Amino acid sequence: MTAVVSAAPGDGSSILPGLREIDDVGRDATRGGYSRHLWGDAELSLRQWFVSRAEALGLDVETDRNANIWAWWGTPGQDAVVTGSHLDSVPGGGAFDGPLGVVSALDAVAALQALGVKPARPFAVVVFAEEEGSRFGVACLGSRLMTGKTSGDAARALVDSDGVSLASAGNRAGFDVTHLGRDQAALDRIGLFIELHVEQGRGLIDLGEPVAVATSILAHGRWRMRFSGQGNHAGATLMTGRRDPVVAASRAILGVQDIALGVERAGEVARATIGRSHWNPGGTNVIASTADVWLDARAGSDAGTRALVAAITEASQEAATREGCTVSIVEESWSGEVQFDVALRSRLSGALGGVPALPSGAGHDAGVLAGDVPTAMLFVRNPTGISHAPEEWASAADCAAGVEALTSILRSLLVEGAAAAPGPGGAPGRLAAPGPGGV
Amino acid sequence: MTAVVSAAPGDGSSILPGLREIDDVGRDATRGGYSRHLWGDAELSLRQWFVSRAEALGLDVETDRNANIWAWWGTPGQDAVVTGSHLDSVPGGGAFDGPLGVVSALDAVAALQALGVKPARPFAVVVFAEEEGSRFGVACLGSRLMTGKTSGDAARALVDSDGVSLASAGNRAGFDVTHLGRDQAALDRIGLFIELHVEQGRGLIDLGEPVAVATSILAHGRWRMRFSGQGNHAGATLMTGRRDPVVAASRAILGVQDIALGVERAGEVARATIGRSHWNPGGTNVIASTADVWLDARAGSDAGTRALVAAITEASQEAATREGCTVSIVEESWSGEVQFDVALRSRLSGALGGVPALPSGAGHDAGVLAGDVPTAMLFVRNPTGISHAPEEWASAADCAAGVEALTSILRSLLVEGAAAAPGPGGAPGRLAAPGPGGV
Repeated sequence: MTAVVSAAPGDGSSILPGLREIDDVGRDATRGGYSRHLWGDAELSLRQWFVSRAEALGLDVETDRNANIWAWWGTPGQDAVVTGSHLDSVPGGGAFDGPLGVVSALDAVAALQALGVKPARPFAVVVFAEEEGSRFGVACLGSRLMTGKTSGDAARALVDSDGVSLASAGNRAGFDVTHLGRDQAALDRIGLFIELHVEQGRGLIDLGEPVAVATSILAHGRWRMRFSGQGNHAGATLMTGRRDPVVAASRAILGVQDIALGVERAGEVARATIGRSHWNPGGTNVIASTADVWLDARAGSDAGTRALVAAITEASQEAATREGCTVSIVEESWSGEVQFDVALRSRLSGALGGVPALPSGAGHDAGVLAGDVPTAMLFVRNPTGISHAPEEWASAADCAAGVEALTSILRSLLVEGAAAAPGPGGAPGRLAAPGPGGV
Repeated sequence: MTAVVSAAPGDGSSILPGLREIDDVGRDATRGGYSRHLWGDAELSLRQWFVSRAEALGLDVETDRNANIWAWWGTPGQDAVVTGSHLDSVPGGGAFDGPLGVVSALDAVAALQALGVKPARPFAVVVFAEEEGSRFGVACLGSRLMTGKTSGDAARALVDSDGVSLASAGNRAGFDVTHLGRDQAALDRIGLFIELHVEQGRGLIDLGEPVAVATSILAHGRWRMRFSGQGNHAGATLMTGRRDPVVAASRAILGVQDIALGVERAGEVARATIGRSHWNPGGTNVIASTADVWLDARAGSDAGTRALVAAITEASQEAATREGCTVSIVEESWSGEVQFDVALRSRLSGALGGVPALPSGAGHDAGVLAGDVPTAMLFVRNPTGISHAPEEWASAADCAAGVEALTSILRSLLVEGAAAAPGPGGAPGRLAAPGPGGV
């Protein structure tokens, strides 16, 4: 539980130096792994670390109106090549989900500088805020705000599990929350975005390859399900006189699994998970009055995900009724299916000598941005196949292969890309319009 | 959710003045009702309030080595008549569970003083600490420590949900925790103990009576059930590749209900409840690695409760195995069946003109003490039948009937009791030895 990185499988003695620098930041002694949440002490430390590392490479750092950090190599401007990821984590998460993409971006810059590359177009490394949504419940919040998918008003009103609003938390961290929202100027500068990320499934294990290009992201969202019954005394209330929302929620959770398993066994993609609960009042000797559980549901298409949630809703209503309870289901976030930009994907695959292509079950900022700019992702093999948990891992050799791939692509884009297709004053070098299935 | 007492059913405009004095202390804005936990701000305020109220009646106040408060009318000594209850609450509890017995005891003292009664034997009002076990998990902790049912070492090592040990919390509250444990001197002074309490079921509603005497308390205990699986990414992990402890726990919770319902439908007493959970890591987009739930189980006998828990254990192990998970079950507390002292019960019933007798599904300090001294309880009608929830209630008229009954009994015991059976220097007026079924 303590030495997250060094206790991992394989060659625990060698990891990327950048990851080693932050190995001690935000360890979660209770859950294991790391808990690095927006504007918490650990996340603020990581922000400082990133600024120092970027400045040491000669990059100019700025934080945008949505708390995302940009480190520019040279003058900021339009049609920029942008790469990066996030530094926050799920509660008790692994060391790689997010930081690997940031460290790899910085390492790629260092490699390009060592190679004497002079970028022919603007270039930035970006760190997106609250990608996991672990503090305020909305995943990819920094990129959703930048693209206007979440409004500033909606974001400011989000509340963490301690009842602290995002507006208040931002103020405490010294961040001005009054300008949250769609940031057209920031978007206009992005020519394309590439996110390197640890793989969160077993695709590369099965393929025996260290690096892949992403094809797509499942449509996914989050729903809060509140089962309401009658709080009462656990010892004095007859079993037959109860309206226990915990029993209703438990039956619904079995329904969640059954429904998603049924779809998967029929050969379609479906994932449905309940991993978070809040029962009120939460006393051992008290029948709860309400039981909140949060649903994470995903499928291969928007319609498939909607159908999955509709089936779960029906099963949950039946479960509630059976216990004399009610259930209300509120959508907390929604991200439609993403197909990554085909031209950019092809260019990446070509530059990397035909690495395999894999779909992603996980959401990413690259998916959120795909509706506005061409985006692509690189995955690095995870030998445990486990993510969002301390067992998440990538070998030093595979991480190095990821940095090498990213460096190679960036070199191609920074040197050749600008010359390849200069437009007449518009968006020179933009590789492709967003694909039709982009959001 | 805000005006707990005044929003209650019936004659909300008139409640016992003593309860009105503490109406604002420890309101829980999130859960509704009150959260008054050992050494929290609200509970410390209630302690101060009790001391002031007792001193205003001319009582001498002392806190014992186990954080229980004693207010003596006259000189402390052996064979004392003791009455009282507790001031702490479950999370989001009602206004009456605990405080009604304390306020009624103080009101009875005032009534006896107004009647010119001069106690012929020692008398005290007691406030027991952590009766609900809401902070440190062990119910009736103050009386369990006093009687040695929980050791000082075990108590000091208890940890609250924020990871704060009882030893540390006591120190912070200025309480010396080094002398926790069986308090023979305190026990030796108790001649008998009478606890007045709001009823936590519907017995007096059905009987149409305001006050009853208790016959017994169900055998009951608490068990922490930890389901362990494999934490992983909610979106990237196939449904068929999961070992999800939340699904295992959910199936076990349905088993808990089914098993207890089966016993109840067969005509026996059984209550089994899961009202508290802690899932680790608790992220919406994370398959949990562990799911803790707490079982409260009760039945009409020790053997019946053990059999109930054995059946639940078996069902939980099956549920865990089915999901590729494991489960460990740890007993956190145990309280055997209590039959209240027959002689004392008879005396109370007689003094009150034959009020009805009712069993209790809830545990009480009077049940813990029953193994060492004669104890009895008075119940006051709860017109909602709901307890451990904001809807818990007692009308002003019924509360007054409770105070009148307690006053009448105390007068009988303090004036006549001492003269009735003076022993030769031993325990004059002790009414009966502990019953054989006392613990």
